Amino acid sequence: MLDIYTESVVIHRKNIGKLGVTALTPAKTKADLSLLYTPGVAEPCRIIAKDPSQAYDLTWKGRTIAVISDGSAVLGLGNIGPLAALPVMEGKALLMKEFGGIDAVPIVLDTQDPAKIIETVKQLAPTFAGINLEDISAPRCFQIEEVLQDIGIPVFHDDQHGTAIVVFAALQNAAKVVGKPFESLKVVVVGAGAAGMAITRMLLGVSCLAGSCQRLLNHPSVADVIAVDSKGALVPGRSHQNIYKQAIAGLSNRTQKSGSLAEVIVGADVVVGVSGPHNITPEMIHKMAPKAMVFAMANPVPEIMPSEALEAGAMIVASGRSDFANQINNVLAFPGIFRAVVHGRLKKLDLNMKYAAAQAIADLVPHPNAELIVPSPFEPKLAENVAQAILKSQSNS
Amino acid sequence: MLDIYTESVVIHRKNIGKLGVTALTPAKTKADLSLLYTPGVAEPCRIIAKDPSQAYDLTWKGRTIAVISDGSAVLGLGNIGPLAALPVMEGKALLMKEFGGIDAVPIVLDTQDPAKIIETVKQLAPTFAGINLEDISAPRCFQIEEVLQDIGIPVFHDDQHGTAIVVFAALQNAAKVVGKPFESLKVVVVGAGAAGMAITRMLLGVSCLAGSCQRLLNHPSVADVIAVDSKGALVPGRSHQNIYKQAIAGLSNRTQKSGSLAEVIVGADVVVGVSGPHNITPEMIHKMAPKAMVFAMANPVPEIMPSEALEAGAMIVASGRSDFANQINNVLAFPGIFRAVVHGRLKKLDLNMKYAAAQAIADLVPHPNAELIVPSPFEPKLAENVAQAILKSQSNS
Repeated sequence: MLDIYTESVVIHRKNIGKLGVTALTPAKTKADLSLLYTPGVAEPCRIIAKDPSQAYDLTWKGRTIAVISDGSAVLGLGNIGPLAALPVMEGKALLMKEFGGIDAVPIVLDTQDPAKIIETVKQLAPTFAGINLEDISAPRCFQIEEVLQDIGIPVFHDDQHGTAIVVFAALQNAAKVVGKPFESLKVVVVGAGAAGMAITRMLLGVSCLAGSCQRLLNHPSVADVIAVDSKGALVPGRSHQNIYKQAIAGLSNRTQKSGSLAEVIVGADVVVGVSGPHNITPEMIHKMAPKAMVFAMANPVPEIMPSEALEAGAMIVASGRSDFANQINNVLAFPGIFRAVVHGRLKKLDLNMKYAAAQAIADLVPHPNAELIVPSPFEPKLAENVAQAILKSQSNS
Repeated sequence: MLDIYTESVVIHRKNIGKLGVTALTPAKTKADLSLLYTPGVAEPCRIIAKDPSQAYDLTWKGRTIAVISDGSAVLGLGNIGPLAALPVMEGKALLMKEFGGIDAVPIVLDTQDPAKIIETVKQLAPTFAGINLEDISAPRCFQIEEVLQDIGIPVFHDDQHGTAIVVFAALQNAAKVVGKPFESLKVVVVGAGAAGMAITRMLLGVSCLAGSCQRLLNHPSVADVIAVDSKGALVPGRSHQNIYKQAIAGLSNRTQKSGSLAEVIVGADVVVGVSGPHNITPEMIHKMAPKAMVFAMANPVPEIMPSEALEAGAMIVASGRSDFANQINNVLAFPGIFRAVVHGRLKKLDLNMKYAAAQAIADLVPHPNAELIVPSPFEPKLAENVAQAILKSQSNS
């Protein structure tokens, strides 16, 4: 029996990757050629030239998105570059198809310069219905995504928002299980990269642009979040905080605690780890409030192993891994999100839509318990429910 | 019965375009997920990070090319922009699959600035085994392609070289049929855009870089070519000649004829039209040398209808259309060329390879006659023979 890594390589080598491009209509005769290519193809071209929206009906733009990375922050592997990131982008594109029923093209870029990434994504926009940015390191990812909000198709950095959406969904159900109101929760987020910053923002109902943040009032939010990076809690005035960290520090950490994770976790109801292996200890969990909720989501080695966290007294434990209960994985969100992008021909994905997606995911577990706070990625209604919730929130807004 | 244009729109609308992306391995279980995505996918990533050449074995880079356009010179429709060009790029990608057995991704760019096109294609390079540039107007296409020769994967502007290769192949066989040595032929090329310039260069055995051309001696070439644009024959010192036209003028048109097409066609053995409808008249054909060869390749309406050209005394007539004999179409070349790119993991497509491709196409018609100077695009050995010839020329050079 092969181990999981060796077996994965065997599968990748067998088909030379994981994705294929297929002709939806065969070209077997001269007549086929003249319909699919010249001269017949001139007519769809002329129609689109006259009415650009027809590209959604007459070309794969109406079904297809791109998954784009610069390879700067890949899984737990770090900055391994674009070529080595391609298997992940293919995997993501495959899941878009398998779970969301939409076509996705993996693309890795030979640059890590934010200005060049922005320029390239802009120029690719006519080809696709939407762009999933992936595995781009923070804080570059914030600037890149913000600038790309106005290119006419949705640009969605999944490491930020996909993660925030599934954490928001999981925490809603976890709060029900432990019997604490969501709005009363004190949360510590370990890691202030793409995921950590987005989780902090979404749990607080905060929207940020160009390093300036504001609290929104029309979404449920927790009582407080303290985000912690390798230098300790984000707090106004701390040194070594980029503009994004400074901005969120001003709206989080209400009691302005400074110090290490071990210090600021005291009394917290929830700890969400999006950092690296072994960053949360049993001693820390001992110091949390009763009925502690521990989401240790580092992959593949979590901040604390689930069994350890339970032994230390946590009431609910979740991780990013498929071999434990409560797998909080972005795959719960992105297939449905891009299904909405494609089916709704959306121009943007706004904050309302992200909250609607989280609610749809949470609602698929009507009776949560300590070992079931999120649905399975194989839940057949998942992508369609998420997509419908997004499209409905659009018509409401 | 629908006309060909209406029927083409019906087909495009039915499937929303012509191409799909498919998963080569299904993701039906948690075990599948951990092999195709995290954590298993980390191992192919690690292998590629260590040895980048493994991307050809472990990702779709080993099977997939991109067909990229800015929509500036689409079919006979002109500058209709990227979105309206997408049906053509999808069509080309479909033919790559159907005839060449390789995967191709259509991409249209939201810019017509050569510098931005160059930058974007560079940044897309890690994702693909090769790039087919398509429908980019002259003279921008020359600069764009030249600058992109050193990005580590082949970049091939099909409107230039694909057309030149199939014309070269067709003319070799046509010369046999009329009994004139290829090296004795006097050729007039109508149109000095991407295709006309490349045909002129290839028939003369001339290689150009940055507006500077030189004659190569190791390939068969015709006796002379006069290229004609809307202002008449290209000739040294003429006004309104861009640097590319000036450079080729110095190595073509040996007798330095100036004047209109009607003037310089007198005595020519061959006329190759890559311009627009009705640019060649029966009177012009009357003035050509005996046994005239007329390739009227404008699409969909040729420079002269084949029946007219035959009536005017041409011995061999070819067009770009599938409803007449002797269809000279790039589809004879590009599927095999990119099959070689993929299977040989080529870094560049050099001139030797282009001549080898032309020879392989010509050789598939061992006994040419006036109505059969090129093979059918459905000839089953076509793509593989072209690919093999290219790969063999590589090992010889």
